[in-house]
Amino acid sequence: MKFVIIGGDAAGMSAASRAKRRQSDMEVIVLEQTGDVSYSACGMPYNIADPARDIDDLIVRHPQVFREKQGIDLRTGHRVESIDPAQKTVQGTTLDGKTFQVDYDALLLATGASPIMPDLPGFDLPGVMGLKSLDDGRRIKAFMAEHQVKQAIIIGMGYIALEMCEALRARNLDVAMVKPRPVFLPWMHQDLSRMVKEEVETKGATLYPGHEVQGIEQVDGRLKVLCPDLELEAEMVLVAIGVTPNSQLAEDAGITLGIKKSIAVDKRLRTSVNHIYAAGDCADAYHIVTGEKTWIPLALRANRAGWAVADNVTGKEVALPGIAGTAVFKVFDLQVARTGLNVDEAEKSGFEPVEMMIQGRTRAHAHPGASKIGVHMVGDRKTGRLLGVQMVGKEGAAHRIDAPAVALQAKMTVEEFVQCDLAYAPPFSPVWDPMLTAANQLLKKL
Amino acid sequence: MKFVIIGGDAAGMSAASRAKRRQSDMEVIVLEQTGDVSYSACGMPYNIADPARDIDDLIVRHPQVFREKQGIDLRTGHRVESIDPAQKTVQGTTLDGKTFQVDYDALLLATGASPIMPDLPGFDLPGVMGLKSLDDGRRIKAFMAEHQVKQAIIIGMGYIALEMCEALRARNLDVAMVKPRPVFLPWMHQDLSRMVKEEVETKGATLYPGHEVQGIEQVDGRLKVLCPDLELEAEMVLVAIGVTPNSQLAEDAGITLGIKKSIAVDKRLRTSVNHIYAAGDCADAYHIVTGEKTWIPLALRANRAGWAVADNVTGKEVALPGIAGTAVFKVFDLQVARTGLNVDEAEKSGFEPVEMMIQGRTRAHAHPGASKIGVHMVGDRKTGRLLGVQMVGKEGAAHRIDAPAVALQAKMTVEEFVQCDLAYAPPFSPVWDPMLTAANQLLKKL
Repeated sequence: MKFVIIGGDAAGMSAASRAKRRQSDMEVIVLEQTGDVSYSACGMPYNIADPARDIDDLIVRHPQVFREKQGIDLRTGHRVESIDPAQKTVQGTTLDGKTFQVDYDALLLATGASPIMPDLPGFDLPGVMGLKSLDDGRRIKAFMAEHQVKQAIIIGMGYIALEMCEALRARNLDVAMVKPRPVFLPWMHQDLSRMVKEEVETKGATLYPGHEVQGIEQVDGRLKVLCPDLELEAEMVLVAIGVTPNSQLAEDAGITLGIKKSIAVDKRLRTSVNHIYAAGDCADAYHIVTGEKTWIPLALRANRAGWAVADNVTGKEVALPGIAGTAVFKVFDLQVARTGLNVDEAEKSGFEPVEMMIQGRTRAHAHPGASKIGVHMVGDRKTGRLLGVQMVGKEGAAHRIDAPAVALQAKMTVEEFVQCDLAYAPPFSPVWDPMLTAANQLLKKL
Repeated sequence: MKFVIIGGDAAGMSAASRAKRRQSDMEVIVLEQTGDVSYSACGMPYNIADPARDIDDLIVRHPQVFREKQGIDLRTGHRVESIDPAQKTVQGTTLDGKTFQVDYDALLLATGASPIMPDLPGFDLPGVMGLKSLDDGRRIKAFMAEHQVKQAIIIGMGYIALEMCEALRARNLDVAMVKPRPVFLPWMHQDLSRMVKEEVETKGATLYPGHEVQGIEQVDGRLKVLCPDLELEAEMVLVAIGVTPNSQLAEDAGITLGIKKSIAVDKRLRTSVNHIYAAGDCADAYHIVTGEKTWIPLALRANRAGWAVADNVTGKEVALPGIAGTAVFKVFDLQVARTGLNVDEAEKSGFEPVEMMIQGRTRAHAHPGASKIGVHMVGDRKTGRLLGVQMVGKEGAAHRIDAPAVALQAKMTVEEFVQCDLAYAPPFSPVWDPMLTAANQLLKKL
């Protein structure tokens, strides 16, 4: 049995490790186009924030550990360029230009996603960079050091853009952020997005939402981001307008693509082609609230899906129920968290969403150090089901969100959630946790 | 309709407020023996920690607000001494010695619990105090100020004892803690209780577990706590060896008592006697994991049960499913949390408990500021059900515990919990949250 994996980050290496653990005599080959495997991509903004830290700190496990300790045939610098499902082979080229071919019994596509780079003038200039691979992180750190960057422009205002904003402000850079859509964090309830926006502005970044970027120019060694009604100037431009699944290889091999060109998989992570699985940021998933397909590329799912592929390949049938779209990020002193659906998403999936927005406190009455926490909750009028929760606060939001995430997994109604025996002590919450207060209020409207 | 409530703290005032909100013309009478209603009893240790804070800060709502704004007939200084269920009346004496009688259509017993004071010599000496009512808090603060207390002994090592230890250390007192049982926090897994013990000792308190207290003596204005093999001396002794439900009134009226002499109630909070309800620390509850009766007096349940009684009295049938025994407390820099059953409790309830203890990290690989978090998880071999979780860590434990608390409410298996889409970002957890790691490991043993 020969298990071949294309891509050596979260999903790929999780699958490789687990397959060897379950079946030590299995031949497991990982083909990774870069020199890096198994690193914490999500940790990059925090690493970039600190010039003293080496980017290689983010490597969770080094290639030689996989090779020598785990017996995985890990081939870095191996770029796969085509798959032949009929012959069950993959073909490609190594970094030093040699072609290779490998045959497989089972194949896993764990090719990840890439930052979207708009097809506009100047996005290929030096100093204009995206952030996804460890090499991207290296490039950004090297560029900052070499050019003693004092000003940066970030195109995009999503969570990676905001994490990078925090990182660059930590290094005392002037940061301007620009994006075409006028609404800041459009997926959030406006009371919550306003809290986040104020935090970013308070911490010294300048926001320019509602400005279409038309191109980038280099003038006297500086970069100019050009909008119809605005011109921003800096030494460095980061592009963080989203990512797109690396699915071309799959498409070329005749594998069915799903939502947003991600690779369509069933609950057992099987693609439309026999013996070929997909996992991680390149693959889609079922949403546990809607039951429909979705594409929300996040790290936990990638790891979990990698494991599930290894289980399925080694003879243990595993089906993943799906994801709730639980996500959390830090924006300076704020924790921003969500799980499940917002009102728009709920409507699109055929629910009758009813929403509740409350402002609570993070600690008990009269307890020192309390701060505001905003909780937005969505329920379904027809069934009473809890559909989604969003939260923003200085403390507790990041971990609180796990409670409604579990409730979504259990398909709880708001009424059932209200009855949950959540923890209380004065340093950590009011007697009625803000989530329960939101649920109590929402229940009255349902 | 006349709704009479005995006791004006969490359960009582929750019931009174909600009954008036639901039915503004209802006559709602609250009979409270002290002068205080609606205060944050759990906040007392944190208030005592700060000599500059007034204990009245802990009052959530003042009596005149209930009377004037909410139209509740709140009678403080009214001690009820007997109930006549046949005549549907209660009788008692006011603080100034007058007797009174009130008739009711529905009666709620919200008499709370009292700190256990052992029947041993010296426990009535000045400077020997328990902590439950706001008056207890006042007494302790006044005593400390008046006698410039430098040394204190705490009898007991439960969560209130530990919170008081922290409070007194914050005021730079020498603190010694003593209790008869040799095991520190016996309900916890030993790896976790060790973390807590080390924290308490590191922060300068001296622990004497395994010493039976035989009495207290006053010598030269100081107090001596006497054990067979130990003598401790201080200016103040706090007794925190647990609480007992205030159920004598109920028992005298022929109402059935349940576990640990708490007042037995059904899911609608009805006692064994018609028209009489009980809620809060004086009443028992169903445990959602075992389905059996339990007595775990905590604030959220008290508030929730108060509401449920008001609903039932005002014609909206409400049944509370029960509690998971979710509890959290702070011990200096540690967060200590639990939900559900430990191994002993699971065995006693007929489960076949399998346990897993892991040490995880609070943040992602290579993320600065990470610290240890211990997670203990119990599952049932027969059904695969998740039965309970305990956690200790410097960050995130207090709010993380809500996730398994929800899972217990949903009667999830460990396998289902493992599939939950929990939040991940480097500042807040590893990709696999320590709870998921514990669940993954436990699953292998089930």
